[in-house]
Amino acid sequence: MDDGDGARRFHVSDFADLRLPRPERRLRLGFVGGGRGAFIGDVHAMGARLSNCWEVVAGCLSSDPETARASAKDWYIAADRAYDDYRVMAEREAARPDGIEAVAIVTPNHLHHAVASAFLDTGIDVISDKPLTTTLADAVDLVERTARSGLVFGVTHAFAAYPMVRQARAMVAAGDLGRIRQVHVEYVQDWLTEPLPADHKQAAWRLDPARGGPVGCAGDIGTHAHHLATFVSGLRMTGLRADLLVCGAPKGLDDTVFVNARYEGGVPGLLWATQVAPGNGCGLRLRVYGEKAGLEWDQENPEYLRYAIFGEPPRILSRGVGAGARPAAIRLTRTPRGHPEGWIEAWANLYAEFSAAIDARRRGWVLPPGIVDFPTVADGARGVQFIDAVVRSNAAGGALVELSEDMPGGRP
Amino acid sequence: MDDGDGARRFHVSDFADLRLPRPERRLRLGFVGGGRGAFIGDVHAMGARLSNCWEVVAGCLSSDPETARASAKDWYIAADRAYDDYRVMAEREAARPDGIEAVAIVTPNHLHHAVASAFLDTGIDVISDKPLTTTLADAVDLVERTARSGLVFGVTHAFAAYPMVRQARAMVAAGDLGRIRQVHVEYVQDWLTEPLPADHKQAAWRLDPARGGPVGCAGDIGTHAHHLATFVSGLRMTGLRADLLVCGAPKGLDDTVFVNARYEGGVPGLLWATQVAPGNGCGLRLRVYGEKAGLEWDQENPEYLRYAIFGEPPRILSRGVGAGARPAAIRLTRTPRGHPEGWIEAWANLYAEFSAAIDARRRGWVLPPGIVDFPTVADGARGVQFIDAVVRSNAAGGALVELSEDMPGGRP
Amino acid sequence: MDDGDGARRFHVSDFADLRLPRPERRLRLGFVGGGRGAFIGDVHAMGARLSNCWEVVAGCLSSDPETARASAKDWYIAADRAYDDYRVMAEREAARPDGIEAVAIVTPNHLHHAVASAFLDTGIDVISDKPLTTTLADAVDLVERTARSGLVFGVTHAFAAYPMVRQARAMVAAGDLGRIRQVHVEYVQDWLTEPLPADHKQAAWRLDPARGGPVGCAGDIGTHAHHLATFVSGLRMTGLRADLLVCGAPKGLDDTVFVNARYEGGVPGLLWATQVAPGNGCGLRLRVYGEKAGLEWDQENPEYLRYAIFGEPPRILSRGVGAGARPAAIRLTRTPRGHPEGWIEAWANLYAEFSAAIDARRRGWVLPPGIVDFPTVADGARGVQFIDAVVRSNAAGGALVELSEDMPGGRP
Amino acid sequence: MDDGDGARRFHVSDFADLRLPRPERRLRLGFVGGGRGAFIGDVHAMGARLSNCWEVVAGCLSSDPETARASAKDWYIAADRAYDDYRVMAEREAARPDGIEAVAIVTPNHLHHAVASAFLDTGIDVISDKPLTTTLADAVDLVERTARSGLVFGVTHAFAAYPMVRQARAMVAAGDLGRIRQVHVEYVQDWLTEPLPADHKQAAWRLDPARGGPVGCAGDIGTHAHHLATFVSGLRMTGLRADLLVCGAPKGLDDTVFVNARYEGGVPGLLWATQVAPGNGCGLRLRVYGEKAGLEWDQENPEYLRYAIFGEPPRILSRGVGAGARPAAIRLTRTPRGHPEGWIEAWANLYAEFSAAIDARRRGWVLPPGIVDFPTVADGARGVQFIDAVVRSNAAGGALVELSEDMPGGRP
Repeated sequence: MDDGDGARRFHVSDFADLRLPRPERRLRLGFVGGGRGAFIGDVHAMGARLSNCWEVVAGCLSSDPETARASAKDWYIAADRAYDDYRVMAEREAARPDGIEAVAIVTPNHLHHAVASAFLDTGIDVISDKPLTTTLADAVDLVERTARSGLVFGVTHAFAAYPMVRQARAMVAAGDLGRIRQVHVEYVQDWLTEPLPADHKQAAWRLDPARGGPVGCAGDIGTHAHHLATFVSGLRMTGLRADLLVCGAPKGLDDTVFVNARYEGGVPGLLWATQVAPGNGCGLRLRVYGEKAGLEWDQENPEYLRYAIFGEPPRILSRGVGAGARPAAIRLTRTPRGHPEGWIEAWANLYAEFSAAIDARRRGWVLPPGIVDFPTVADGARGVQFIDAVVRSNAAGGALVELSEDMPGGRP
Repeated sequence: MDDGDGARRFHVSDFADLRLPRPERRLRLGFVGGGRGAFIGDVHAMGARLSNCWEVVAGCLSSDPETARASAKDWYIAADRAYDDYRVMAEREAARPDGIEAVAIVTPNHLHHAVASAFLDTGIDVISDKPLTTTLADAVDLVERTARSGLVFGVTHAFAAYPMVRQARAMVAAGDLGRIRQVHVEYVQDWLTEPLPADHKQAAWRLDPARGGPVGCAGDIGTHAHHLATFVSGLRMTGLRADLLVCGAPKGLDDTVFVNARYEGGVPGLLWATQVAPGNGCGLRLRVYGEKAGLEWDQENPEYLRYAIFGEPPRILSRGVGAGARPAAIRLTRTPRGHPEGWIEAWANLYAEFSAAIDARRRGWVLPPGIVDFPTVADGARGVQFIDAVVRSNAAGGALVELSEDMPGGRP
Repeated sequence: MDDGDGARRFHVSDFADLRLPRPERRLRLGFVGGGRGAFIGDVHAMGARLSNCWEVVAGCLSSDPETARASAKDWYIAADRAYDDYRVMAEREAARPDGIEAVAIVTPNHLHHAVASAFLDTGIDVISDKPLTTTLADAVDLVERTARSGLVFGVTHAFAAYPMVRQARAMVAAGDLGRIRQVHVEYVQDWLTEPLPADHKQAAWRLDPARGGPVGCAGDIGTHAHHLATFVSGLRMTGLRADLLVCGAPKGLDDTVFVNARYEGGVPGLLWATQVAPGNGCGLRLRVYGEKAGLEWDQENPEYLRYAIFGEPPRILSRGVGAGARPAAIRLTRTPRGHPEGWIEAWANLYAEFSAAIDARRRGWVLPPGIVDFPTVADGARGVQFIDAVVRSNAAGGALVELSEDMPGGRP
Repeated sequence: MDDGDGARRFHVSDFADLRLPRPERRLRLGFVGGGRGAFIGDVHAMGARLSNCWEVVAGCLSSDPETARASAKDWYIAADRAYDDYRVMAEREAARPDGIEAVAIVTPNHLHHAVASAFLDTGIDVISDKPLTTTLADAVDLVERTARSGLVFGVTHAFAAYPMVRQARAMVAAGDLGRIRQVHVEYVQDWLTEPLPADHKQAAWRLDPARGGPVGCAGDIGTHAHHLATFVSGLRMTGLRADLLVCGAPKGLDDTVFVNARYEGGVPGLLWATQVAPGNGCGLRLRVYGEKAGLEWDQENPEYLRYAIFGEPPRILSRGVGAGARPAAIRLTRTPRGHPEGWIEAWANLYAEFSAAIDARRRGWVLPPGIVDFPTVADGARGVQFIDAVVRSNAAGGALVELSEDMPGGRP
């Protein structure tokens, strides 16, 4: 239907089959970063492929020409679309009739701002890994630049795309927990327990302030924890007191962070992230308690959500089971209950949502609220605001630092 | 290296980086079955896409022309390669220079034999869902036909492609458990607990002997349990006593099967499968006990393998952790420990293995043993032999029925 | 209230506070068996003490005079009530004004019949360990002898005294599952994985047919599995086909048993018990599935009962939580939810029930149905009937053997 | 052996069978508090009975004469030893030749100091519930008074008496984790989620500052968390920043506490306790991470300890399994692995240790270090010091408060 402003508007009933809208053909995607030896680029690409909404047709996978070329071959990218300069890539792809319709940025953090700006400025939608930028000013700039461009800008907090996380968010929003009283989140890993080999590519840039940003653990995984807590609770973090700690071997940056947080309405909560807790792989765990009920979720067992109404036996919710299953979760479900979906499926969910939003933008369609629910540049900027506040609080001996609501980008 | 017979032989050291060999370009895949309303076809396609070794370019997704055409569009298949007759598809694709290099068969069971034969006879490698056929004679025929053709024939017991199942198989083979003493497997579901709507497409053909085969539960999920038990233990099932039961509403075919099995060397074990156990989604669980240690694995929690050496605390093995991690598991790993891989990843593992085997065959390469380890037509035939024995034992009131070793296809 | 027949009858409303009736003073208990080096006697004694309904005042803890005396001292039993001949003990205690009011029999199995008879014949209530006897004739004799005596005879299937087992039994009885369709039980241990030292007192008599009875595993733990399945389902086992197996080192008797069982109404189920499965301590697990719902319980995690209504998220029931908590479970609860009660508490529950029944008998009171629900001599005899049928089926190559309903003692 | 000072000294080899020393007869125990409607008194009594080291012979179970009398009858205490004034009880019992040998204090917190003093002053050993007192001055006074008396003073942090907690403490002490880097503890409950009925006896005094002390949650369960963390890590808490929060309905006192703690050597950790988290019964969980390994323990699943050496698969330790089982855990074990021991068994462990220490004191024996390891009055005082610091930090807006080492009583 046409509301008269030229934009076709869809309503939720158009999606009555609880499927995400799919583009009529696969959209064309390019990558910046992700060449041989990288980690997260492959994960983006697996998500994009599994979504079946994208084909990867171009890439500046490395700034080293030889690595860029070899990596492109690994990725089945045609030689003439294998770049070693992202500015050239932005320019040439924008000029091609079959140019990329979005770019995925998977470089070290310090390059996110420049790369994203280059593609936004040529009119190409952007998908960026987190943290959005290494400075708050850069984050604000990207929010504003995106707003001016009218483009889509997605940020890959992929943990927020698990079906049971969406289920949790929908239940909180529907009031199933009553007023929220406490929000606790932790992200516990062990990979930095012992010093890594000097040539460990991941550790190298993640622990280098010039490339990873001003914090280590707090930026790398703390921002995921921050996002998950605010996403599910529906509450912005309004203040915090933080300690940046080095519990393991000296490494220049924090490997552990403790945050005593306050959310909207004064709701308290603890946030703990560490990379030096032996026996923990990717222990991102969220617990939200309200007046009526509690929800508990563990990323290492992502298909289940423990839902306990006060005074009743806890229920173990899983994808699509029972009357309480929410469209927001069902829409992201590929396989029947009991056939585990995992982390790559969460990435595929994000990439399917990105495609729906970008396809709609290109066609001038307006999707009804809630059909896609991915993290945007504004959410990414909130993450940088969180890092900034953590750094300032820690520098002040754990003093209370407030997180202003009115930064560009509005509510998470 | 060239051993003089024209075939290039690879050795394990060629795969020292513990990666599966990948084709130089994506191979071309066609589908028979899988149109709108189908279930398993989509899962095959997701696995193929995630593997990044295949592109789906042709399909006979339905025998109904309109459904075939609409489904092909959903799958982004070009209109001229959307067929509604698999024989036509086999013929035309075989004739095209860019024709498919393998066909995935995802029709109801009774069509597997005819479709597979049609493609084998035109020289196209075959990937078939299970059970392989609805009669033992057909299964034997496919084994022989495949042998004559020299083609690759893979069968999608995807549960056997989880990394931790491969880990278990490798540990048993290496003697970590000592001599095996008991093998117990169960596959517990609940979807047939209540009568399904008359238009439930899945139930319709799965419970119709003319289309699904002579058994219900025993064929649909019992064969997965049979395969898993023999795959991990490395032991052929040599005899059984079986009861086919209808525990739920009358439905023509069994919804439950009890098997008292004997494996090579007289090793005993129970096999239980049911589709009417409320609260169970896809409870495929295997327990293998030997002289020295036991292994326990649960498909709903597939990333973990419980390994208990007698007299020691159980260890919870996961992908790639510690000195005991086996190449067979590492080779199928995409993401770091703690970032869950699930069922679709297992399918992607199978499809990656299929591509490696087919690419090698096409190039005249011989892969070293153990590099790929997918179920073949011979394994599929063992599954049909299992069904046949179950039917005969049940008909004889649970009498002992032996499973001959010397059926075509040799050891599993 | 008095119903005119001299017996005071209580009604459920007399127990409105959901507590078991307690005797006005601790009852006096004696033991036969349980001296130094024994295992289960201590467990009985711990249960009795924790129940606070009993004091242990006499014992024939060993037939060896010196061990009997030393063990009695360990148990704080006065020297003049430390016996080394159970017949003497029965006679003297029956003659004392402060004589024991019940005897607990914890000898090797072959002595149960003679000891129980001796005490029954002097008018002393009996508590016996399982299996009740080593022959079916002896079991029937004890049932009849008990009936003639009018005494209480309890059998210690303590697993049936966990609160959540009582909860399960009550839910099945109330129809929460609808008609029962399948009953599966297993009891998995590993202590016989390797040959035990020659002086291992437990193994010595348990594996000696002259003292332990005609079966090993099937009698020692198989009978617990049989009792639990019938107790919770409320269904008598009516037939079986069984294999007695030696999976571990040769030991004269079975270490493993497979049973394909039928319960009243033709309900099928598997029963598996083994003592040679590395990594398993006391893995007694029950699963009962009905038309509407399923229940799953694991003895190693006894505080929780998984209750899954078809089509709804499973609920994790625990002691006393929520509207569905049954009096039968609440009555046996000592501590708040989350403060774990374990195996000794289950024993204490049995001993509290024994005291209530014996106290009532001595006072001429009649307790309302359901207030106590412990296994009786009739249940014990059903266990011996089960063993007898297993032996006969196994001897006949796994042939079907029926379990007659009309043995003395009636329904379980 | 006699070291010449009149005290018989035992050495660890005297306990080579890994059993706690037992008194030659049961010791006589009296109670103050615990009458009808009370909660924790029953738990103490169950522990004492199960230990088989005590008989309860006297009690001032209530200050209300009628309740005191009726409660004593419930407890099978002779009428002439049922008191309604604890001072009278102390005096009379001290004068009897068969007087009590220890008193268990289970009154509301504000009475602990006066009651304990009364019994210490008449030469009777004391067992007190926690928190030790409601003021730090009172706690210090009890430490000094105990020292002057030469008596035994045990405090019932019963969670520290689980075998696997002792196993954890022994492993940390032996260096299995290397240097400790982080200590995290939480205690999560839900019983105050909704306002309780006005006549709820437990809530009434626990939430009344005049009777429960200056804090609610922090004193009631926060002190258990504090004790457990220091007991297992072997590290004193040296500083903290704390927030006392009311997350649920207004109730005068905190229902939630957040603590950012520092332990000896600057080791950081979070401590969180709450009583308003729906779905949580008694979620006391400890995680300790060191250079080499991590330990994780959950009170609701107390038989298991997760032990993860960095880079190896986690091991699930349970009582008495494998070469690494520590005497400190084995000594407190009653039943074989897999036969669950729970909370009451932990209380019985404490009461067995109290009896060993008191029996040794009375005989002039000196037990070797480590044979008993119960919390003492000094540990209790450390708990009050913790509460005091929490109150002061909270009052100062979460400022850092140091916990002095040199308070009376020395190291925990």
